[in-house]
Amino acid sequence: VRVLGWDVGGANLKAARWAEGRIELLETPFALWREPDRLPDRLREVAERLGGAGTMAVTMTAELADCFPTKRHGVRFVVDAFSRAFPSAEAWYFGVDARFHSDAESRRRPLVLAAANWVASATLAARTCPDAFLIDCGSTTTDIIPIVGGRVAAAGRSDFGRLRRGELVYTGCLRTPVCAIVRSLPVRGRPCRVAAETFAIAADAHLWLGSIGDEDYTCDTPDGRGRTRELAGARLLRMVCSDFGALGPEIATEIALAVQRAQVAQIASALRQVERRLGASAPRAFLALGKGSFLATEAAKDSGLAPREGIEALGPAAAVASLLQESVQA
Amino acid sequence: VRVLGWDVGGANLKAARWAEGRIELLETPFALWREPDRLPDRLREVAERLGGAGTMAVTMTAELADCFPTKRHGVRFVVDAFSRAFPSAEAWYFGVDARFHSDAESRRRPLVLAAANWVASATLAARTCPDAFLIDCGSTTTDIIPIVGGRVAAAGRSDFGRLRRGELVYTGCLRTPVCAIVRSLPVRGRPCRVAAETFAIAADAHLWLGSIGDEDYTCDTPDGRGRTRELAGARLLRMVCSDFGALGPEIATEIALAVQRAQVAQIASALRQVERRLGASAPRAFLALGKGSFLATEAAKDSGLAPREGIEALGPAAAVASLLQESVQA
Repeated sequence: VRVLGWDVGGANLKAARWAEGRIELLETPFALWREPDRLPDRLREVAERLGGAGTMAVTMTAELADCFPTKRHGVRFVVDAFSRAFPSAEAWYFGVDARFHSDAESRRRPLVLAAANWVASATLAARTCPDAFLIDCGSTTTDIIPIVGGRVAAAGRSDFGRLRRGELVYTGCLRTPVCAIVRSLPVRGRPCRVAAETFAIAADAHLWLGSIGDEDYTCDTPDGRGRTRELAGARLLRMVCSDFGALGPEIATEIALAVQRAQVAQIASALRQVERRLGASAPRAFLALGKGSFLATEAAKDSGLAPREGIEALGPAAAVASLLQESVQA
Repeated sequence: VRVLGWDVGGANLKAARWAEGRIELLETPFALWREPDRLPDRLREVAERLGGAGTMAVTMTAELADCFPTKRHGVRFVVDAFSRAFPSAEAWYFGVDARFHSDAESRRRPLVLAAANWVASATLAARTCPDAFLIDCGSTTTDIIPIVGGRVAAAGRSDFGRLRRGELVYTGCLRTPVCAIVRSLPVRGRPCRVAAETFAIAADAHLWLGSIGDEDYTCDTPDGRGRTRELAGARLLRMVCSDFGALGPEIATEIALAVQRAQVAQIASALRQVERRLGASAPRAFLALGKGSFLATEAAKDSGLAPREGIEALGPAAAVASLLQESVQA
């Protein structure tokens, strides 16, 4: 059986397939909220680039996108998109209960599928890494998942429950607006209030600092201009209503560093909240995952956690592919 | 001489004309950053609705819009738009030096015109109200302008200078994204981190609370859905990744009140910064202006300032019309 794993987000499509003992991954930006009706076509395109359809293992977070009036609508929309894109392929949907659900069952109880993608990665990671925080920092959000004694010890199930417990932090290395990260930015050491506009995003700070390359800047730029370092710097200066005509590159660096520090602090603060809940059983090690693993790693080290070396965690698309493959073979 | 006053913002066009001793105002939303090339047509439409072109008095903040690489480009673009829209009308551009500048001079020294609209309102208000804070809370930003001994006593000139001194606060009653106002929101008294997405804006909170009506909600909704109270409430709940399926209307109220309180606190904190700078000469009264004057008034009262009754301040479009009319007659 050939399994294609999917992680359908609101801003990115990720697909994974095992081939000859290695995982093939494909990730493509897709602003679902802008053109939801193109989802079936985009799914087919991605599947073709990975060698065609097969049995589908699907997890999602796309149901939160604001093109859907509620999450129920969102989940059903994604399930519909798969059955329309691949009418003859079998599809299994992964739930927060760590089980796969059929098409019919998924339509009946859509909320079981909502925001379940972190469960897949954590379920797999728990086998090789029985005591650790799995910290998955992506383009938009960061998951902090405690694994204790080989068990996924997260307390939140819904996005809301996870947000309030610190297990989901809505900060990522690309799409997060700078005005959602900081209220003020330092300019020559003095704080300046920021514009409440999406003039710049996290990707601009990390591109300016060299933490990511322009090939990693896979989301839209806020102003529709290019993904060069110079333009990223100009976007950062606009956050304090200024530009390179008035302020120099050293100020762009000061601003970018402050954005990075604030993101690391946001993640570290959530990590402390999860640690407090777990008390003495809180893991002392971490496993970082995702495009923004550089932020996750810094936050975890600041919190005194040790990196688990030599173990590579799988992202949700690869994880659901592995989990379904296993259960089919078993 | 018939003067048409203009305040060209990045999200709204405002025009004013004196007719028989009374001011006629027209305000229309226009997302300049989305379609800058339509500006001349939109200017002409607005002028026609106010009885046709005349001598133009122009002030602007539109140069900050991110369709312009720098503010210089932005100012020159607006000046060009006026000369293209009204080739036979005389246009005078108001500067931060409180003077009018010709077309040619404006092109030579564009930065004098950048973000000068607050100077016009303050210059007029200073005559009738020699000691007060003029607090103009609009759809997007709030200006805090101290008037001391009949003089405009603001220290900042550029947007950047004003932001860092608390004279410009980038918060308003409509367009401000909720994620730029708060980091967490209370749900049944317990804080919950928020989504870093523009799922909801200030207008949703104020519409839900009844502080504004649906006819005041003149900007786009973040999700492209309607401006009803119900949909505004749903957008507010999405900020904690939830919906009316999971949380009830009392939580939407709890969230909306927290957003309002945070905006009032932002304005009050900036007000305190300006008061500190002025020391003993700081005014003890205020004059509120703009669509968001309900926020400005609350912040000023929280700061122990007394409202100046019986005096109505003019917005920038009306103010430049008055000032130019005067200087032409003088």
